[in-house]
Amino acid sequence: MGQYVAPIRDMQFVLHEFLKVEEQLKELPAHAETDADIINAVLEEGAKFTSEVLFPLNHSGDREGCHHDVEAKTVTTPKGYKEAYKQYVEGGWAALACDPEYGGQGLPVVLNNSFYEMLNSSNQAWTMYPGLSHGAYECLKEHGTDEQKKTYLPKLVSGEWTGTMCLTEPHCGTDLGLLRTKALPNDDGSWTITGNKIFISAGEHDMSENILHLVLARVPDAPEGSKGISLFLVPKFLPDGNGGIGERNPIFCGAIEEKMGIHGNSTCQMNLDGAKGWIIGQPNKGLNAMFVFMNAARLGVGMQSLGLTEVAYQNALVYAKDRLQMRSLSGAKAPDKPADPIIVHPDVRRMLLTAKAFAEGARALTSYVALQIDRELNHPDEEVRKEAGDEVALLTPIVKAFITDNGWIATSEAMQVFGGHGYIAEWGMEQYVRDARINMIYEGTNTVQSLDLLGRKILMDNGSKLRKFGEKIRAFVEENGTDEAMSEFVTPLGDLGEKVTKLTMEIGMKAFQNQDEVGAAAVPYLRVAGHLVFSYFFAQMAKIALEKQDSDDKFYKAKLATARFYFGRLYPETAMLIRQARSGASNLMALDADLF
Amino acid sequence: MGQYVAPIRDMQFVLHEFLKVEEQLKELPAHAETDADIINAVLEEGAKFTSEVLFPLNHSGDREGCHHDVEAKTVTTPKGYKEAYKQYVEGGWAALACDPEYGGQGLPVVLNNSFYEMLNSSNQAWTMYPGLSHGAYECLKEHGTDEQKKTYLPKLVSGEWTGTMCLTEPHCGTDLGLLRTKALPNDDGSWTITGNKIFISAGEHDMSENILHLVLARVPDAPEGSKGISLFLVPKFLPDGNGGIGERNPIFCGAIEEKMGIHGNSTCQMNLDGAKGWIIGQPNKGLNAMFVFMNAARLGVGMQSLGLTEVAYQNALVYAKDRLQMRSLSGAKAPDKPADPIIVHPDVRRMLLTAKAFAEGARALTSYVALQIDRELNHPDEEVRKEAGDEVALLTPIVKAFITDNGWIATSEAMQVFGGHGYIAEWGMEQYVRDARINMIYEGTNTVQSLDLLGRKILMDNGSKLRKFGEKIRAFVEENGTDEAMSEFVTPLGDLGEKVTKLTMEIGMKAFQNQDEVGAAAVPYLRVAGHLVFSYFFAQMAKIALEKQDSDDKFYKAKLATARFYFGRLYPETAMLIRQARSGASNLMALDADLF
Repeated sequence: MGQYVAPIRDMQFVLHEFLKVEEQLKELPAHAETDADIINAVLEEGAKFTSEVLFPLNHSGDREGCHHDVEAKTVTTPKGYKEAYKQYVEGGWAALACDPEYGGQGLPVVLNNSFYEMLNSSNQAWTMYPGLSHGAYECLKEHGTDEQKKTYLPKLVSGEWTGTMCLTEPHCGTDLGLLRTKALPNDDGSWTITGNKIFISAGEHDMSENILHLVLARVPDAPEGSKGISLFLVPKFLPDGNGGIGERNPIFCGAIEEKMGIHGNSTCQMNLDGAKGWIIGQPNKGLNAMFVFMNAARLGVGMQSLGLTEVAYQNALVYAKDRLQMRSLSGAKAPDKPADPIIVHPDVRRMLLTAKAFAEGARALTSYVALQIDRELNHPDEEVRKEAGDEVALLTPIVKAFITDNGWIATSEAMQVFGGHGYIAEWGMEQYVRDARINMIYEGTNTVQSLDLLGRKILMDNGSKLRKFGEKIRAFVEENGTDEAMSEFVTPLGDLGEKVTKLTMEIGMKAFQNQDEVGAAAVPYLRVAGHLVFSYFFAQMAKIALEKQDSDDKFYKAKLATARFYFGRLYPETAMLIRQARSGASNLMALDADLF
Repeated sequence: MGQYVAPIRDMQFVLHEFLKVEEQLKELPAHAETDADIINAVLEEGAKFTSEVLFPLNHSGDREGCHHDVEAKTVTTPKGYKEAYKQYVEGGWAALACDPEYGGQGLPVVLNNSFYEMLNSSNQAWTMYPGLSHGAYECLKEHGTDEQKKTYLPKLVSGEWTGTMCLTEPHCGTDLGLLRTKALPNDDGSWTITGNKIFISAGEHDMSENILHLVLARVPDAPEGSKGISLFLVPKFLPDGNGGIGERNPIFCGAIEEKMGIHGNSTCQMNLDGAKGWIIGQPNKGLNAMFVFMNAARLGVGMQSLGLTEVAYQNALVYAKDRLQMRSLSGAKAPDKPADPIIVHPDVRRMLLTAKAFAEGARALTSYVALQIDRELNHPDEEVRKEAGDEVALLTPIVKAFITDNGWIATSEAMQVFGGHGYIAEWGMEQYVRDARINMIYEGTNTVQSLDLLGRKILMDNGSKLRKFGEKIRAFVEENGTDEAMSEFVTPLGDLGEKVTKLTMEIGMKAFQNQDEVGAAAVPYLRVAGHLVFSYFFAQMAKIALEKQDSDDKFYKAKLATARFYFGRLYPETAMLIRQARSGASNLMALDADLF
């Protein structure tokens, strides 16, 4: 059932050659000791764990799914999931990028990022269990009381307990302001919470001793809408005060959803029937606290699609080299065989290279963002921290939406390489497509991401974050503009940079007249911005590759060819997107709803 | 579980106003009597049958799938399928567009086409059973002996017996020249056939008394490759000579495939263990005969995605009007409600209009092609028949590939309108996406279609079919170029026409040097050609709508808005595609296979 080999060579290229992480981490006291040896050792060990333990459970977990025992109100995960999680905890993987104060290993986010790519390539559905726990860890660490941190963080860091985020209700997903779950205060400072949540990933399962639910609810007399939402910690089992678990809290799984994919993850309807909880942060400020979790989750979703893109690519590549079908149009390439391997056909290569370029671009982008998070968290200079934080804020919706849209395209192309066999479950390719589809929806649909980028992060900010990032690009273009070998990369990069500036101003002007112009332009705009970032990163990677193209290591030749493919075949999407974004709101808004 | 209402009003617009079928059919003696009343009556009845009988089985059939009894070697279709098929046969639907000589109703293909759209909207998996039978009918009618026709056609026409096409083998799909199934001649003129076929849609089932398999195989001493393939008729039960069935023929289902979608259709591995068959046409000319079937099937696959696009659109529209979430950016539109219906949001409209425009464009295109088939088959003037046949040949790969790619996009956008609910099986939207995915693969992958279009139908033909179609477009542009109201449609149409001409010549020149240039350009080229056709048809439809936009029938306002959306938001894809097609083969072929 297919294969997964962690792309360590490309990860090392991104970390050591493109980002120069060792140098960068030296600036951060917390990570100054994290050298190339440590990084490479973690990559090697992570590769082993993910490909040997998790990948073999991916297809079987999809076919089996989760089991809900309605009577016992329990959920059993697919065969092998629980045991794999035990190995994960024992291997200390949950603690990798956590604070040593709570038992973490204190490694940088940028390294954890590469490990998460491997986890997601191996098994997205499984990875969601620890992935959500890590989000809960970050939220509690930022907004919890000292006592909450002391009680819960070590358990999340070790992986003994897992976490969830309980936001969605049947009548509200995007519009959390409508939520109805109620929290009533108790005399002891705790709260009693009642309501129904849906789409709770990893909401109930058998993999950990306890589950910490982060639940959005309303306190009495809360203001209407999103300003009246509070965040609560609602453990499945109340802590016994000695590091163990006590009473079962009435937060139960009412049903698990039948979904298109990620069958190995239990997507639960959760009923809170007077469950006991503790508030995190201030009443009515719950969304602020939850945003820490959501931002982490958005980056995590981008990683999911990067993982799927890579593994789908790898399997399509193996098939394309193996499958014999038709002769090359330019003459037989394997005349000794009954037909040529299909990798000789230009369009098969187009499909493969689409996935390859999307994976490599996403790897560069997510690693870059992860490193900026390390800088935001740990750089001694406040100015640098702020700048890094601004970049993370700007790039987060791009990571989430651009990479997940690309993942949908890439997994589908990889499946297409298999012809009819791609549609058959046995080969495993159609699962990647089904799994990839959710990533465009959850943690804020890609439309929501695009509004966040264009509306919140760019226009409301008067374009200042974008301008700063654009200055880096302009500096790179100027620096390399006279290098003839670089012109095939620098020219389109510079051109797109100018077009984005112009487009942004144009939409900003139109938005003064009509706010719907923002909504009408946002989705193509985000993809243009994504291509600008990819163009910038591919140009930088091409520069490194050009310098080393004559080395014995053929890796650089491949990198250069991938960059050329990117500019020749994927970058042209910007010509479409800019036209769409500029076409304005009227072609969307003219038609009365009744006339659709 | 959703809804389906046949889009009769738009079908009538296409048939009566856009194509003026009544007038057109008067030129064809066989159909001269088919007037608007007959057409409208069939549409009404077809709408009832498909929405009341087939649509309710669509979701349940997907969840249940087919059952293979390994011992008994039988396949049982999902609950209700068999009974629905009985109603279909009793209603005479199988006979709709069949020759009265064999019991058919002799109605035109263009009307059958609309009925097939309804069938596919209601239930693609179910429709494949009669759909394949109709293909077998056409193949036998064209290439069968008089005795074969007499024995089998009435049974296919009535629907008592169904048909299949058995092409693919484990080691060959696209490359049928590699196939290994063997046919040995018997003394009585029959053949004994042995081999293994895979991916046989409707290969075994319980819906009809008998199944007629059209099987590709090799006769002794056949030339290698595709010039050594013969076509055989292999019935599941041998006919008893009196219109009934006799002995069971050893062609058995070995397994049914687990697939991504179309679960209601039995996709079988078929084992022929010395099965008795009769040759259709001449030995070693089997592919020619099968092409009749395959061309019909390719158009049929386009219809499948049109059907899915329409039904996905309808359900997304209902949801978008009903679901309340967030306020319009340009001010509350339903201030009396807790939030606005999501159809107020520009990007939700973009998704809806994408599906709507793709459905309406595909409806115009497939109906146009169907009418050309009627003209090809029945026009008294040989010249007209040939011209119509040329257009059908040119447009068939566009119908297959362009509409199915669009269907994948459209069903996915329609699903996205539902947010998280789209990913849940219960709502039915994810099924449309899964079902739509196969249409890009079977009956020749979309890559194969694009090579057929650019290589075979255009370059090998020295562009003559394309030129003739282009002349119609140029005439339309000239005729309407001075009409100011039409300029928003005619200008981009004329522009694209010129670009296609230029692009075609450019690729043709490059192909002289390197045949891989054809393969490298073909896929984006086909989509450019698809947009040229859609632009032409939307411009024509806009013209009709402009003339009637002040009528009380708001339909024309909606049509005009859809055409404007098409040119504003979908047509810009051509800017990307042309750049991709022109970027040439080198960005695909440069990388050694080992360096991927």
